[in-house]
Amino acid sequence: MRRFAAERAKRLLNGCLLSSRSWPSASLCSSPAAAASVDSAAGPVTLDTINPKVIKCEYAVRGEIVSHAQRLQEELQMKPGSHPFEEILYCNIGNPQSLGQQPITFFREVLALCDHPLLLDNSEAPALFSSDAIERAWKILDVIPGMATGAYSHSQGIKGLRDAIAAGIAARDGFPANPDDLFLTDGASPAVHMMMQLLIRSEKDGILCPIPQYPLYSASIALHGGSLVPYFLDESTGWGLEISELKKQLEDARSKGITVRALVVINPGNPTGQVLAEENQKQIVEFCKTEGLVLLADEVYQENIYVDDKKFNSFKKIARSMGYGDKDLSLVSFQSVSKGYYGECGKRGGYMEVTGFSAEVREQIYKVASVNLCSNISGQILASLVMNPPEAGDESYVPYIAEKDGILTSLARRAKALEDAFNSLEGVTCNKAEGAMYLFPRLHLPNKAIEAAKAVKAAPDAFYARRLLDTTGIVVVPGSGFGQVPGTWHIRCTILPQEDKIPAIISRLKAFHESFMEEFRD
Amino acid sequence: MRRFAAERAKRLLNGCLLSSRSWPSASLCSSPAAAASVDSAAGPVTLDTINPKVIKCEYAVRGEIVSHAQRLQEELQMKPGSHPFEEILYCNIGNPQSLGQQPITFFREVLALCDHPLLLDNSEAPALFSSDAIERAWKILDVIPGMATGAYSHSQGIKGLRDAIAAGIAARDGFPANPDDLFLTDGASPAVHMMMQLLIRSEKDGILCPIPQYPLYSASIALHGGSLVPYFLDESTGWGLEISELKKQLEDARSKGITVRALVVINPGNPTGQVLAEENQKQIVEFCKTEGLVLLADEVYQENIYVDDKKFNSFKKIARSMGYGDKDLSLVSFQSVSKGYYGECGKRGGYMEVTGFSAEVREQIYKVASVNLCSNISGQILASLVMNPPEAGDESYVPYIAEKDGILTSLARRAKALEDAFNSLEGVTCNKAEGAMYLFPRLHLPNKAIEAAKAVKAAPDAFYARRLLDTTGIVVVPGSGFGQVPGTWHIRCTILPQEDKIPAIISRLKAFHESFMEEFRD
Repeated sequence: MRRFAAERAKRLLNGCLLSSRSWPSASLCSSPAAAASVDSAAGPVTLDTINPKVIKCEYAVRGEIVSHAQRLQEELQMKPGSHPFEEILYCNIGNPQSLGQQPITFFREVLALCDHPLLLDNSEAPALFSSDAIERAWKILDVIPGMATGAYSHSQGIKGLRDAIAAGIAARDGFPANPDDLFLTDGASPAVHMMMQLLIRSEKDGILCPIPQYPLYSASIALHGGSLVPYFLDESTGWGLEISELKKQLEDARSKGITVRALVVINPGNPTGQVLAEENQKQIVEFCKTEGLVLLADEVYQENIYVDDKKFNSFKKIARSMGYGDKDLSLVSFQSVSKGYYGECGKRGGYMEVTGFSAEVREQIYKVASVNLCSNISGQILASLVMNPPEAGDESYVPYIAEKDGILTSLARRAKALEDAFNSLEGVTCNKAEGAMYLFPRLHLPNKAIEAAKAVKAAPDAFYARRLLDTTGIVVVPGSGFGQVPGTWHIRCTILPQEDKIPAIISRLKAFHESFMEEFRD
Repeated sequence: MRRFAAERAKRLLNGCLLSSRSWPSASLCSSPAAAASVDSAAGPVTLDTINPKVIKCEYAVRGEIVSHAQRLQEELQMKPGSHPFEEILYCNIGNPQSLGQQPITFFREVLALCDHPLLLDNSEAPALFSSDAIERAWKILDVIPGMATGAYSHSQGIKGLRDAIAAGIAARDGFPANPDDLFLTDGASPAVHMMMQLLIRSEKDGILCPIPQYPLYSASIALHGGSLVPYFLDESTGWGLEISELKKQLEDARSKGITVRALVVINPGNPTGQVLAEENQKQIVEFCKTEGLVLLADEVYQENIYVDDKKFNSFKKIARSMGYGDKDLSLVSFQSVSKGYYGECGKRGGYMEVTGFSAEVREQIYKVASVNLCSNISGQILASLVMNPPEAGDESYVPYIAEKDGILTSLARRAKALEDAFNSLEGVTCNKAEGAMYLFPRLHLPNKAIEAAKAVKAAPDAFYARRLLDTTGIVVVPGSGFGQVPGTWHIRCTILPQEDKIPAIISRLKAFHESFMEEFRD
């Protein structure tokens, strides 16, 4: 019998992203003629006649460098040995399972049972599933109307799953959560789009965003035709968020006639990895309340904290602990099943908790959600699981904790190893990744490198990232995709390659950097 | 041991939508105070300050009447016997599994194995899964990079699954399909939004849409700020689509300064149920080619045909059979796992096949897709399955065919029974449902009823639908939500209640209609 675990391990060893086979019948349908025909297509739609907001939108995390990496990967597959590396290492995106992280067994057991509930009637089921997975599957099926996991749900998500998520939030925060405040979504991205769509009327509406920021925000603001109002995080204080900077940028935007509608805060930070201190969060809440801004809190990395002296606090907990309720602050918290120790990116689950909006505005949010009917039910189930994992005494509890701790402590070690490696490079400084999944080192590039980049019409950090990829197969995203203080250059690198690969990555990185500096040193 | 099949059957018998329980710990988190707080929320965001496009957008299929139905359902749960019916029958939306349709076993087996592939290593697996489900799961895992079903995929969807879908399309049409033309999406709705986002620059851009239409189109055009250019289907010829009408409306729109960019055709029709004849499709293709319009072909009901003399032909097959290739016609075909005999609405799977666009425009579509990273992997897998079901000789083939034929022949009987019932009502005429999942009967309402509706500021068909719901528990959507010739009134009713419930529905419907006419007869 062919075995999944062995097969998977073999592929990981061989470079997991190089081993996908073609569907056997693919050659029948994908003729070279069909592929080539695209270029000869003319048609009524041209770059000059499409929505200019689409043209304006950029999404660096899957931008030009990633397309180039995919081309290299195809070349490696067609012609092994054609490049000075054997595999492409995708450090461009927070996609843990693509780099070999294993899913939490309990979560997958429950998903499989909910996908095919007739398994519950099979007498062999207890041989294949843990008892608490079976119990949890029943609990979930019990709250799904008709036990139909293949039906559209309520547009906010299945009520019983929202109850469970609300209970999880309440347990996390120590303050009540209302299931009617939850909108379950296909990952956090559609939730962010929904809020931007609601808030942005024209380019005169602004959204305060950190710089550097996760490019979903700039892309979504561009697609909805608004203005991104930047506030700069302070690299010299570990990407500190200063209220004085928020005030300055808010006033500056207002003086230009921009109506600033919301403040985006990413905590833990992406790409910057800092974890906000409680006192700082209180100031932010106070600022939004005073200035009448919606606080859009991206809290998708709430489980990813790697330092002992920092702790995640949700903005809702902070606001409630200050005595502020629904009438004081409009607050939206985004959460996703893609991050944390679970890293279930492909499941597209997530939610937003929407508090402090009037009933009639909430109805409008509901209406927009209803146009897409509902988010996928597996993702909804998974969101309920990550907010209610196994508890002490459950059969899965001990293995669950071992899997979770194994992932989180390994991520902490990887973050530290890569941070140290970056800091050891000539002209590179790198803040600590206190949380999230990224390092965002600053490159102090020699003038010669900057000139060389100019000559090929590339930003200096894009030039560096492209060279790194072509030499080592490591894919990182240039800082220009996230925004940075003008004249400074960075790259974003995930901490996600499996731990046994880190030493090799570090030595490839060091060798590349040395030779790059050698070539361009002033 | 508690048994799923028995439990599910019991719930169906009792009215499947009334039986969902609360999550045990829900009472801890959902305090009345929290629920009430919404109304007291003020905050910086009001109806006057949100995006007016959001306000303008309407989505009748989940509109006011459905909210009312949900309130009635809650009342029935809290106080059984409080209404003259025991359950709410949701005939408002094409959501088969919510009304008791069972999923195709083979599809669910494969999904469960892909969700938890370690099952493949268990020696008990062959006791729980069919051999071809196991084989198919391996085939799918083999084409997923790293066999990681929890990773973000390529933004268009996993390449190997697109290969499989392209092979399925090629087998359906007899013309090649290119996997690079496929964009896998969370159901068809996000695909439609993507195309509207691409094509609409301002209210000066128009999209030709059938009237009646599926309100996703009007909602999406409103959200993206374009103009819906209506063309009327001819009810007297079974909702015929006349090219002369298309031309007239196109010219009329152009004379008003509207740039018409695309033509939406829904085939089989929603809400109208007609299946287009091949000759008619050829005329439509010719019209789009001549007029330089993108043809947006909603083909999600391609498996739902109930009459022997009609057959589904994809617009791509029609165009290719006319000798038209990529350079002649810009064509987008939408498909979904939510419809057909599979009806897997909750899985949110689907794709669009994008042909006849230049490489640079396709790059823009890819960019927009990449902002949301990818569609959910289970939905992607399911899309590959519905386009490649079991084949003769496979272990699952015989039960698969039995399940499929059982569903489709039953749907055909239900469509006929409900069509006959509507036609038997005084002042009601109803075209045949040749395909799709709906009937769209016309109500010739007495003046008194129209006056009574006016008095409560309701459209006459909304007034009728509300009365029907309050009296019988049957939820239908007023025709005004889909558009109709001014002065005519319709309702849309799905054919989806389980067959054993149809006689009772028909007698409730007849009794209601008689008493309604009795009350309002002129």
